Amino acid sequence: MSYKVISEQDIQFFSSILGEQNVSVEEYDLESFGKDQTENLFFKPSIILFPNSAEQISTIVTYCNNQLIPITPRSGGTGLAGGALPIFSGVLLSLEKLNSTIEVDTKNVQVTVDSGVINFIMQQKLAEFGLFFPPDPSSWQSSFIGGNIATNAGGPRAVKYGVTSHYVLNLEVVLANGDIIWTGANTLKNSTGYNLTQLFVGSEGTLGIVTKAVLKVLPKPKEEITLFVNFTSTQEAIEAVNSIILEGLNPLVLEFMEKNAIDEALKQIDDFPIRFENDIQACLLISFDGNTLDSLMEKAAKTAEILEQFSIGEIFLADTETDKERIWKLRRRIAEIVKSNGYTIEEDTVVPRSEMANLVDFVHHLASKNNCKVVCYGHAGDGNLHIRFNHPTHKNSYQIPEIQSMLKELFAYIHSVKGTVSGEHGIGLIQIDYLEHIQTQAYLQTLKNIKKALDPNSILNPGKIIHV
Amino acid sequence: MSYKVISEQDIQFFSSILGEQNVSVEEYDLESFGKDQTENLFFKPSIILFPNSAEQISTIVTYCNNQLIPITPRSGGTGLAGGALPIFSGVLLSLEKLNSTIEVDTKNVQVTVDSGVINFIMQQKLAEFGLFFPPDPSSWQSSFIGGNIATNAGGPRAVKYGVTSHYVLNLEVVLANGDIIWTGANTLKNSTGYNLTQLFVGSEGTLGIVTKAVLKVLPKPKEEITLFVNFTSTQEAIEAVNSIILEGLNPLVLEFMEKNAIDEALKQIDDFPIRFENDIQACLLISFDGNTLDSLMEKAAKTAEILEQFSIGEIFLADTETDKERIWKLRRRIAEIVKSNGYTIEEDTVVPRSEMANLVDFVHHLASKNNCKVVCYGHAGDGNLHIRFNHPTHKNSYQIPEIQSMLKELFAYIHSVKGTVSGEHGIGLIQIDYLEHIQTQAYLQTLKNIKKALDPNSILNPGKIIHV
Repeated sequence: MSYKVISEQDIQFFSSILGEQNVSVEEYDLESFGKDQTENLFFKPSIILFPNSAEQISTIVTYCNNQLIPITPRSGGTGLAGGALPIFSGVLLSLEKLNSTIEVDTKNVQVTVDSGVINFIMQQKLAEFGLFFPPDPSSWQSSFIGGNIATNAGGPRAVKYGVTSHYVLNLEVVLANGDIIWTGANTLKNSTGYNLTQLFVGSEGTLGIVTKAVLKVLPKPKEEITLFVNFTSTQEAIEAVNSIILEGLNPLVLEFMEKNAIDEALKQIDDFPIRFENDIQACLLISFDGNTLDSLMEKAAKTAEILEQFSIGEIFLADTETDKERIWKLRRRIAEIVKSNGYTIEEDTVVPRSEMANLVDFVHHLASKNNCKVVCYGHAGDGNLHIRFNHPTHKNSYQIPEIQSMLKELFAYIHSVKGTVSGEHGIGLIQIDYLEHIQTQAYLQTLKNIKKALDPNSILNPGKIIHV
Repeated sequence: MSYKVISEQDIQFFSSILGEQNVSVEEYDLESFGKDQTENLFFKPSIILFPNSAEQISTIVTYCNNQLIPITPRSGGTGLAGGALPIFSGVLLSLEKLNSTIEVDTKNVQVTVDSGVINFIMQQKLAEFGLFFPPDPSSWQSSFIGGNIATNAGGPRAVKYGVTSHYVLNLEVVLANGDIIWTGANTLKNSTGYNLTQLFVGSEGTLGIVTKAVLKVLPKPKEEITLFVNFTSTQEAIEAVNSIILEGLNPLVLEFMEKNAIDEALKQIDDFPIRFENDIQACLLISFDGNTLDSLMEKAAKTAEILEQFSIGEIFLADTETDKERIWKLRRRIAEIVKSNGYTIEEDTVVPRSEMANLVDFVHHLASKNNCKVVCYGHAGDGNLHIRFNHPTHKNSYQIPEIQSMLKELFAYIHSVKGTVSGEHGIGLIQIDYLEHIQTQAYLQTLKNIKKALDPNSILNPGKIIHV
């Protein structure tokens, strides 16, 4: 694809639409908008635009479509797959000023929100009405609703409440030709035409730019308790996950962490309230929410009964805010700490839950065969396992051939057990090759056909999800 | 679109693939497969094919795509929008022999099922393992899983459990060029490429033919109770629906029936256990499910507290199977009985729940202005209201201009309050004009672009959902 290079005339056009203060070609801005949370990657945009309405975006997109200028939409810039990086340069379209609308509809338990609103800011507004939006990606304090939608973000609470797609009822989208559409209706059921709403969710800005969303939200349960359990066997920890789910206990959170990942984290955390015996291999962090503490304690008791069947250490019940906070700090900081210790970027594998134990086994054999270290942790209740390798000499280097060939082997295995590449991060830039590696030509061609149908000139976030 | 007429050579080809016993051009068959449950419509196919594998379907579709022969896939034939009618003649592709697979995966609480399996048959199999598939369209005893997926079917339980789309994890689909793909993975989360799974759900066989599905299922709760409540005001009945939902009682079922609809039904039902005072205008059927009767009785008590704030008659608690059955018989038979009394086909309107009271008002004004009778009933908890008009002289005649112009007015109103044409029946053939009436050109063009991308020769169920 051959794109037009941004000219002085283009800059003047964008300034005339947005005002000069909403257009930047400053070197400092270009540098900082050329990165996201995907390590080691930098692609400098030609220009950054800060529109504040769907109409402005429509004008920009229409212009770029006619001029063949690539547009990379950017939300909070917290992505882990390079989805917001302008790999063909051109326009970096920041959504950070498209953030004025947060309309809570208490009667229908919905919220209408601009895509540039931060998840955390929306949650604060919802909390005023006793409501909450269940998806809680670890980036929630800075990621935008638009980015959550673009990647179909999940988070620990997904095991009970599902992921972003389950809460999106209707979207305002600017299409590649500049047209603005609403994809559906503000209703709980909809069998009217193709499900455009869910086609745009998870499409990472490659089919259209989401400018506004109508989201289903929920009344916030009043109580929450957290258990932390140590296991002397990784396999048993994962079997316990299955047992808890099959018992119908409906946990809010079911997080799995290998002990070696926790050990890395504890190098930088000193107020963790639990001590580990030497033989501990893995841990589960289990939460329940509900409206009465009694009902949660009943669930905790039932959980303890199930856990007694496995080789566990003590069961720690966190019922104070301080203890809960200390436990969650460990879980939340694992990613950043293991990264700082030289591990590769977080793989986002997902398999049918019953395959998790085999997957962990496979991963360790793979790592050991390649003289790498590996840590596994993640959303075990969903079968969504984050994996990071650590090469003996090449630190933080998922791009080296040794790691790439391990990942190809990993994803081929995952595909063979009916799992897939990404559970909640998206494909973006850095997972395209693995998607191509495991998928059939017919499947890939179907993605290409859809991309071509909705963005024939390939100006919307080109080079992401699928090569056209 | 100009299609090829089926020739003797085509018949021979199909017979060579399927065997003669799975190909029919018998007049009796052609007559009966030319109808579904959409009254007054008949379109005779040229030939009926009964494949029993995705591979056979792939061969048929490849052939038809090359020869420009239209294919209309048919599941149980219980549709209410004409979606399974071969309006351009050609091949009627029956899925009734594609029904050998029902594989229950108890570890992952999933089932893999051929699309020709009847919902009821699958439920029986799931029940052996204490599981169930929540979607319960009223056609469930004869509709196929493939048809449930094609229309994104709902049913009374949707208010608690959601609709078909919420349970579809992965689909095997035969594309228009004969390629067979799996759309996703057998996982609870998936951010890998475009959401092809949800694009095919609700697409009524116009983008591909679903041959197999991996469905999420649930453990079946052990207990269920049903309440039946009479209201002296329709508006208050609907307000009560909102109050019950907002209280977080999470009902299994929240069905609304206008008293005039019940009166029609009672002409043909004589064992209904409840008597009505003269001033009753509407009723609610409310169910709760759970694992202990105690918890359900608590919910019933809380519901009664809420209901006392409205002008109600007695609250009838059905706790015996006989009483439950009698009450459900009334709800289930309303559709067929009002139809037999000359009412038009069931409209499937859906609005944000808080708009339901205004919608019922609007409908009655509209009917009265046009000297028609009208009945409303349906899934109030979802804002999904079924509406049937009765013209003073033209019975069962939704096609006459008077009714059509009322429907246009109705759907324009619904669109203005962010509702839409169909909540669970689909657009099929008979709702296309209303979809076009309320939607923007940009929206309609997007549907056309997708149709064209996946079925460039328009051989898959042509003339449904969108005109291309």
